[in-house]
Amino acid sequence: MDWSAGQYLKFEDERTRPARNLLAEVPLAAPRYCVDLGCGPGNSTALIAARFPEARIVGVDTAPDMLRAARERLPGATFVEADVATWQADAPADLLFANAVFQWVPGHLAVLERLMGALAPGGVLAVQMPDNLGEPSHLLMEETARSGPFADAFAGKTIRREALPAPRTYVERLAPLAAKVEVWHTIYQHRLADAAAIVEWVKGTGLRPYLDPLPQERRAAFLEAYTARIAEAYPPLAAGGVLLAFPRLFIVAVKAGG
Amino acid sequence: MDWSAGQYLKFEDERTRPARNLLAEVPLAAPRYCVDLGCGPGNSTALIAARFPEARIVGVDTAPDMLRAARERLPGATFVEADVATWQADAPADLLFANAVFQWVPGHLAVLERLMGALAPGGVLAVQMPDNLGEPSHLLMEETARSGPFADAFAGKTIRREALPAPRTYVERLAPLAAKVEVWHTIYQHRLADAAAIVEWVKGTGLRPYLDPLPQERRAAFLEAYTARIAEAYPPLAAGGVLLAFPRLFIVAVKAGG
Repeated sequence: MDWSAGQYLKFEDERTRPARNLLAEVPLAAPRYCVDLGCGPGNSTALIAARFPEARIVGVDTAPDMLRAARERLPGATFVEADVATWQADAPADLLFANAVFQWVPGHLAVLERLMGALAPGGVLAVQMPDNLGEPSHLLMEETARSGPFADAFAGKTIRREALPAPRTYVERLAPLAAKVEVWHTIYQHRLADAAAIVEWVKGTGLRPYLDPLPQERRAAFLEAYTARIAEAYPPLAAGGVLLAFPRLFIVAVKAGG
Repeated sequence: MDWSAGQYLKFEDERTRPARNLLAEVPLAAPRYCVDLGCGPGNSTALIAARFPEARIVGVDTAPDMLRAARERLPGATFVEADVATWQADAPADLLFANAVFQWVPGHLAVLERLMGALAPGGVLAVQMPDNLGEPSHLLMEETARSGPFADAFAGKTIRREALPAPRTYVERLAPLAAKVEVWHTIYQHRLADAAAIVEWVKGTGLRPYLDPLPQERRAAFLEAYTARIAEAYPPLAAGGVLLAFPRLFIVAVKAGG
């Protein structure tokens, strides 16, 4: 095996695994209409298309760049620009799939309730969200932002998104609208090269709300201060690399009448 | 749907799901020789046989009753009476599968290391263990045993099994013997009817070391005291039933050379 290709595939696998694990728990045999909410560049949409090749598939995202990449990847699917918080189905859906998007939607419980109404009888709402605000990777972003050199830039600003409600809350809210609700966490342990790789991992997602508001010339210093904290919190393994614990919340709600 | 059949299937699904989730992460296409360590009545063995119908399959367990049930269920497989702590493979195995058994084996890390040596090149060691000693369901067994009415029966005895090591420890110990090691937790949220159902759930497993040493005539009182504690710790959902959080540790180690 070419080592750098192996390294790439390993990352691809780790990034796609939650979507794959979520889809594996969707109890549908032959859905006709599937929607991938927050489809990004179409990775999760491709999984849905591979499992349900007969279905009409629609991907929804707000980012034109992502939609362009998704359209190139999956010419057989339709991709529409819309906000998952307000998107309306044009027909009852058999599958509403939302991988790593609703953590960014404040008050998403109300949106999930509304989406149960957009399902066909027997349809499935399947949701995965990172639930890692309590991990050192995320606590240390906040700690860095509130520390001496950066406190002025973030003074009076709330950056940290709201923590997810407990599993119990999702069950309470969705059970009255569903024939069955399953909720669970998986805590992945990603083995990455070093502290810098952890920073690289969160740079495209959780770290953005901290980096984006900083003036360009202060970002390198922020990254350096954050990386130093990460290096302390994630000591190297004797076997090489570091372990990044990454908890994610999964929800699969099945509508009655299938 | 007949409701009682539905209820049964729901339980069957919850009990088999961890084994199914573990098997889904085994990266093998066509193994020739698979071993189900701690096979019990053959539920997990049946999953392996269904995924790998061409493989020679051996189940290992200490309980003759379990082995008899497994043989009836799967006449095409071989079932042998042996202790997973000391069992020796008669040939290099492509899959060593151990669902919910090694939590009962003290010092199982050394056994897992030894089992890596029993794998063929490219073979897979796949392990799942309940990691729920910190949950109220298990803490309250211990609390009940140490409480006034029962303290005398358990005085000077250690009942509680050792907590599992952290994911990091499994990675450190297995990585030198493997091409790849994945470790993760899944915290299931089982929706059960009520506190009595939680007690029913643990009665056949975690509660046995507390019930077995008690004289027959004191067991009902122990169960009653334990159930009262469980009812307080697991309040009913407005939607009906209770939620039993059940953390489980998963390990998939792939040997080099496949």
